[in-house]
Amino acid sequence: MKRIGILTSGGDAPGMNAAIRAVTRKAIHEGLEVYGINYGFAGLVAGDIFKMDESSVGDKIQRGGTFLYSARYPEFAQEEGQLKGIEQLNKFGIEALVVIGGDGSYHGALKLTEHGYNAIGLPGTIDNDIPYTDFTIGFDTSVNTVLESVDRIRDTATSHERTFVIEVMGRGAGDIALWSGVAGGAEAIVIPEKDFDMSKIADKIRVGRNRGKKHSLIILAEGVMHADEFAEELNKYGDFQTRVTVLGHVQRGGSPTARDRVMASQMGSRAVELLLEGKGGLAIGIENNKIVSHDILDLFNAKHHAELSLYDLNSDISF
Amino acid sequence: MKRIGILTSGGDAPGMNAAIRAVTRKAIHEGLEVYGINYGFAGLVAGDIFKMDESSVGDKIQRGGTFLYSARYPEFAQEEGQLKGIEQLNKFGIEALVVIGGDGSYHGALKLTEHGYNAIGLPGTIDNDIPYTDFTIGFDTSVNTVLESVDRIRDTATSHERTFVIEVMGRGAGDIALWSGVAGGAEAIVIPEKDFDMSKIADKIRVGRNRGKKHSLIILAEGVMHADEFAEELNKYGDFQTRVTVLGHVQRGGSPTARDRVMASQMGSRAVELLLEGKGGLAIGIENNKIVSHDILDLFNAKHHAELSLYDLNSDISF
Amino acid sequence: MKRIGILTSGGDAPGMNAAIRAVTRKAIHEGLEVYGINYGFAGLVAGDIFKMDESSVGDKIQRGGTFLYSARYPEFAQEEGQLKGIEQLNKFGIEALVVIGGDGSYHGALKLTEHGYNAIGLPGTIDNDIPYTDFTIGFDTSVNTVLESVDRIRDTATSHERTFVIEVMGRGAGDIALWSGVAGGAEAIVIPEKDFDMSKIADKIRVGRNRGKKHSLIILAEGVMHADEFAEELNKYGDFQTRVTVLGHVQRGGSPTARDRVMASQMGSRAVELLLEGKGGLAIGIENNKIVSHDILDLFNAKHHAELSLYDLNSDISF
Amino acid sequence: MKRIGILTSGGDAPGMNAAIRAVTRKAIHEGLEVYGINYGFAGLVAGDIFKMDESSVGDKIQRGGTFLYSARYPEFAQEEGQLKGIEQLNKFGIEALVVIGGDGSYHGALKLTEHGYNAIGLPGTIDNDIPYTDFTIGFDTSVNTVLESVDRIRDTATSHERTFVIEVMGRGAGDIALWSGVAGGAEAIVIPEKDFDMSKIADKIRVGRNRGKKHSLIILAEGVMHADEFAEELNKYGDFQTRVTVLGHVQRGGSPTARDRVMASQMGSRAVELLLEGKGGLAIGIENNKIVSHDILDLFNAKHHAELSLYDLNSDISF
Repeated sequence: MKRIGILTSGGDAPGMNAAIRAVTRKAIHEGLEVYGINYGFAGLVAGDIFKMDESSVGDKIQRGGTFLYSARYPEFAQEEGQLKGIEQLNKFGIEALVVIGGDGSYHGALKLTEHGYNAIGLPGTIDNDIPYTDFTIGFDTSVNTVLESVDRIRDTATSHERTFVIEVMGRGAGDIALWSGVAGGAEAIVIPEKDFDMSKIADKIRVGRNRGKKHSLIILAEGVMHADEFAEELNKYGDFQTRVTVLGHVQRGGSPTARDRVMASQMGSRAVELLLEGKGGLAIGIENNKIVSHDILDLFNAKHHAELSLYDLNSDISF
Repeated sequence: MKRIGILTSGGDAPGMNAAIRAVTRKAIHEGLEVYGINYGFAGLVAGDIFKMDESSVGDKIQRGGTFLYSARYPEFAQEEGQLKGIEQLNKFGIEALVVIGGDGSYHGALKLTEHGYNAIGLPGTIDNDIPYTDFTIGFDTSVNTVLESVDRIRDTATSHERTFVIEVMGRGAGDIALWSGVAGGAEAIVIPEKDFDMSKIADKIRVGRNRGKKHSLIILAEGVMHADEFAEELNKYGDFQTRVTVLGHVQRGGSPTARDRVMASQMGSRAVELLLEGKGGLAIGIENNKIVSHDILDLFNAKHHAELSLYDLNSDISF
Repeated sequence: MKRIGILTSGGDAPGMNAAIRAVTRKAIHEGLEVYGINYGFAGLVAGDIFKMDESSVGDKIQRGGTFLYSARYPEFAQEEGQLKGIEQLNKFGIEALVVIGGDGSYHGALKLTEHGYNAIGLPGTIDNDIPYTDFTIGFDTSVNTVLESVDRIRDTATSHERTFVIEVMGRGAGDIALWSGVAGGAEAIVIPEKDFDMSKIADKIRVGRNRGKKHSLIILAEGVMHADEFAEELNKYGDFQTRVTVLGHVQRGGSPTARDRVMASQMGSRAVELLLEGKGGLAIGIENNKIVSHDILDLFNAKHHAELSLYDLNSDISF
Repeated sequence: MKRIGILTSGGDAPGMNAAIRAVTRKAIHEGLEVYGINYGFAGLVAGDIFKMDESSVGDKIQRGGTFLYSARYPEFAQEEGQLKGIEQLNKFGIEALVVIGGDGSYHGALKLTEHGYNAIGLPGTIDNDIPYTDFTIGFDTSVNTVLESVDRIRDTATSHERTFVIEVMGRGAGDIALWSGVAGGAEAIVIPEKDFDMSKIADKIRVGRNRGKKHSLIILAEGVMHADEFAEELNKYGDFQTRVTVLGHVQRGGSPTARDRVMASQMGSRAVELLLEGKGGLAIGIENNKIVSHDILDLFNAKHHAELSLYDLNSDISF
């Protein structure tokens, strides 16, 4: 193997650039040539491909987003799309690939591997909703971004004795809500993985108020319902001076945290090692603090599990 | 005069604590006694009042919100409410007041002055919508908070070639939008003070796209319309991959910037000097970099003017 | 057991307040009474002890430092000091303790346990130099603070084509240097755990310069030597426009990251559970992402190991 | 006039990129061509010059440092250097220039103007030490960076009851110390513009300690003396648990604040307007919140004055 390609796919996440840098530098260090593919699988099919050198990834580790751009491209699920992509790989002499993205992008990686082009997947998404990895690239940054907003909102909630419902991202997963809820000292965390009882949440707020508590914060995962609906429901149980904030796309951006940069670097480097060993169809993860890899096929039959012990912990200490 | 009171009223703003600290310390430095009044005019009427010393304001300058809490209390517009407040002033021996808040709270300050209790107003609001001052306490912090979010959103907008409509606060004023728009390099700034032409905005985005521009950012002041409506309108002119973010209450919180802390300190100190000179019914401001004061009555007949030269500047350099 | 105490000892670290909060709230949740002890073992001996309730730890989770204050108190190594401390425990009816601090403070915890007062240690130090735990409370925050400074310095290093030697904390351990070095994309990381060859570092900088690289960053752990000495040595190998920055005490402060707050909450809660099980003389840690506990005695015979795979990773990808 | 050049000179400062962007975009908006000159006057003489278009300055407004790089180049003080520079201007057809930098770089701008090539200077330095402008580009960012560090150090100072001497930049000027000192609530600010009495500073710390104050912060401008010397002197007056931090080059970097970006945009735009009016030999400034310009010659005979009212303010309210 002499030449590998790299692309980012799906929603962007902070740390993707650190992963691209690690893949590129590690590959060059090992004597390989590296080609960047813009706009994910769409760019692969379109041949939006360019040679990278050491300097292509200079001054990028600290940047949010992905400088290779990303795109959703459902056409790559069809064999027709895949074959067009392979045509481009052949044209540029690319023998193997690293794909950074959510589990959607893993399908493409698996298909290319089946066609004889080894591809390794890296978990790049803020949502932390990928199986066989404790953390995804971008999650730690996103949680800290949410936390900063929670801290700001606490100021104004305290000044006015208000209840805030803060809606955070995560698609179907409650991880961002769980972590930012525990770290933010939220009175309640509402996630898709757990049923909730609105009357109990209302009681908790009431008890806190009676004790003299100046603010109540509820972190709501977007996978449960809209914050406006939630607030409307809550207000049926009393007047809590409820306000709503939907944090939105700020959660996707920003300079990555140390954790995300280090983990992205470790994963990117490992991906190149696996390709050099002639392997493909694997997804990289971090489990128990160690960089691991699993068959992508296994991921499709598995389910991500949020760290629900944090939910119970929060019940015990946040009141 | 031996004893003064201090309260914060209306929406909270970063830097209010720095102002409270400056008033308290300056007053003690001048040999006065200082009483803190919780929850604005509501707390005044309720007698939620306590003696402060040097240490009461220690470790507060860097905190967002207001540690004296705030509340809206329309009842103070009526003489009945005012008389109840005066009863409490008499009970605690408070002869004069500093009131920090938006222009709503200036009415209360004026009324107390007319009743013989000198009161000085400080402009505490993120909205920058108070006449006879170039800046209000909290505005600089709020603009920088917005800017941080804009920078984050640019990451993800660039990665996906999207257009973002970012709704910011300001009530009827476009100041937050103007400053964060120029500083954020927004393609368009939409404010209540200026008509806008949606087709021109659409054209500008289109021209940028054709040139290879990776993102378009539109900063929308809440005083114009909701961001969702705006995006819907914009989408009639083409497919711009538009996304919407409403920044919400994060704009009110957070540790104040250097500017806001310094200006709040200057204003707080000046308020005490004016009270010592036997003056009341005045609003403090900053004009041309100098701390000034004006009759509150003059403010009621005046209008705040946003710095519209920034609007033209942005048209010239943001494309 | 009805009543427990809590203290912080040794150098302060961000996240200590989150740990105090978790211990306090969890204990109250379990029906215990909690007493705060100011100034570590010094305050214990002096009887600087007060009852805490739910509200004592409100609005503290986001604060840097320790609101129970800390102090070094070598006298507690002697039995005389310990007995004085026990006198105070008896006086206040405190039956067990949680001690948050570096390994120095674990001696005190062990001694109290041996005297019949169960004590559990929590690893609170930015240095990450405690055995039997992958991370200490404050480490993640400190690394991110360093990283922010590295990112800032990169701006100015790039503008002037300079080499920067950045000295970071860690006492005898290289962990802060390793993590911030990998995350910051440092050309070289110099730590006590690894010998270094100055001529190779100089060569690397030279090669980068010749390729057009605009900056070179060297992260130096304080345990190796002073940054000034290092720069002087480096300059013998060529003119690298070297500048020196010693980051200093900023590394100890600031609002804790999500990781540090979550981990501190988990550890604090576990400490109370262990005390309720009648256990003492244990140190809490996190290993492989799980909260664990070990005999303090075992820690004294063990050595902390920095994650040296990061060192090799950095050699492969940072050039 | 059809073609202008732009360069940055002297120490870099946050906001320089925002200024470059404004000059470039405004010039293109006015139908001019713009050439970027790398490495200041050194690059001018060496002919390191390239054509810029709209996209050259895209995604730059938020970046610290200067993407045109900077360098000190004393040779440009001699006519020989100037003539070489003019040779390059002629070669590239550049008729006029914008120069962003400290007052050193204004000499070059004046000399070029005298040779018939109009040049306008913009005040780009964190030190705020340029006459005829209330603020320089980079000052606001630098003060806020210092402030963030001061806030962090306060955490650890409070936890251990320590006194911190924090040395900040500013060359011969005390502006950074003054602003960050007032905003940081420093017990003492020590600047070149004011004599200080060490025994009074010691007394103030002592009085605060006796009152129960948990920390003392002293902000020291580098123009006075080294922080180590200062601490040594202070310690002769008592044991204040003094620690020293020299903030160093972090003060030069980082994403610019809203103020710095807006002001840089205003100044850059005005520079182009002045060139279009056929003017040269002018320095842009901001006075009383208005963008102004003065003859560079006048600046050479003038002196910058720090806002010393802040010094007195701090004495009154920081204790």
